[in-house]
Amino acid sequence: MDKLFVVKIGGNVIENSAKLESFLQDFTALKGFKILIHGGGKKATEMADKLNIPVQMIEGRRITNEDNLDVITMMYGGKINKNIVAKLQALNCNAIGLSGADGNSISAVKRSVKDIDYGFVGDITEINLNLFLLLLENALTPVCCAISHDKNGQLLNTNADTIASAIAKSLSNYFEVSLWYCFEKNGVLGSISDEQSVIELINPKTYDNLKSKGIVNLGMIPKIDNCFDALQNGVKMVKIGSPKMINVNEAHTTLIL
Amino acid sequence: MDKLFVVKIGGNVIENSAKLESFLQDFTALKGFKILIHGGGKKATEMADKLNIPVQMIEGRRITNEDNLDVITMMYGGKINKNIVAKLQALNCNAIGLSGADGNSISAVKRSVKDIDYGFVGDITEINLNLFLLLLENALTPVCCAISHDKNGQLLNTNADTIASAIAKSLSNYFEVSLWYCFEKNGVLGSISDEQSVIELINPKTYDNLKSKGIVNLGMIPKIDNCFDALQNGVKMVKIGSPKMINVNEAHTTLIL
Repeated sequence: MDKLFVVKIGGNVIENSAKLESFLQDFTALKGFKILIHGGGKKATEMADKLNIPVQMIEGRRITNEDNLDVITMMYGGKINKNIVAKLQALNCNAIGLSGADGNSISAVKRSVKDIDYGFVGDITEINLNLFLLLLENALTPVCCAISHDKNGQLLNTNADTIASAIAKSLSNYFEVSLWYCFEKNGVLGSISDEQSVIELINPKTYDNLKSKGIVNLGMIPKIDNCFDALQNGVKMVKIGSPKMINVNEAHTTLIL
Repeated sequence: MDKLFVVKIGGNVIENSAKLESFLQDFTALKGFKILIHGGGKKATEMADKLNIPVQMIEGRRITNEDNLDVITMMYGGKINKNIVAKLQALNCNAIGLSGADGNSISAVKRSVKDIDYGFVGDITEINLNLFLLLLENALTPVCCAISHDKNGQLLNTNADTIASAIAKSLSNYFEVSLWYCFEKNGVLGSISDEQSVIELINPKTYDNLKSKGIVNLGMIPKIDNCFDALQNGVKMVKIGSPKMINVNEAHTTLIL
């Protein structure tokens, strides 16, 4: 099977133009099929502030009312996505930007209200496999922003980590898929205060051990659970690390079954 | 040859959600291949005002500095484009939004500075025929915003009328192309103050006559010149009128050779 890299970048790359440029060069140099997924939450918050639109976060999650959704659509779907695509084109990577509405690439349902009303937030129901296959087979590189749609005309703010994992899983029957999460740390750390303490390999057994010792806790648990879910659903390998892990032997965490 | 409709909508449709909804229903009902092109200048100006970014217009043309380009990328490429695409998806039209950078669909060069420095404004050099053919052949409907790119990472603000005409011409070897300009009038008017005075048919001979009598003048001359240029380069038919002309026998102006 051909290799496919599904790479998710977070805010710390997007916000720094030198880091972004360097990352995009490394991404372009990856040999194989590839898909890029990005968010841009901090940039969206900055724009909301400029427009005097209040931003409400609950447990790190954005409450997405109509005004906030507009800001997200402008920033994720517009400014950030189009500039990444233009920069990739300059590197001879034939990128094509997508929201979930474009080509019906990512369908979702608006999250139902239980304790908290998250507003226009989507939980993914379907990845349009045929669209991604069509684009990849024609040497196009999809660049997906963190927006889905409900097929009834409503755009929905959707977690970029989850989009990356859903796309990776859905394509795993067709490609040997590697899913790479690039974030602000060098990987899963043995000691939170020591950037050099990267845990190189985690499998379900060592993960249990790390959790029982309290080394992996809080926000990292859902992140790693999400990675194992991808591995259990056909994804070959998951990596967590800094954007630099892409092309050099930079320290990072590899997760396997 | 199969029919292809290249339809350009202006600000007056985009700014009014009821008009837009009605137009998109008519557009979806068109039988044949289709491409939609939109601008959104007034919405971009409103957003620039909210962000305290000065907008400078010279002879109806926007001077596009970096801040204005950002606003255009947010509005044309983001908010307007993604909402149109989501609304078309709800109508079962498999739309895919594109800036000129996406799939390298529209290349351009930054306009050289002569008397006036227009800033980040692009003059089209190439339409990516293969991309449009790929999308159309796979039942996707491209929705293009008024942005091109220079292949070196720079997005460029580009006139939507010109994009529509360039796309229509480039596809005329493969389809029987109709190019429709929807704007705020019912067509080319015999008397500017009378919306009922639509001139139904204009050919080069009657056009000369209309110009010599001063009936067609000012801003309409470059618009109509642009239409005849399209006709002379393979486009089968050009129509100018209100968005309603699409599906009913509403008055409009047809231009033919």
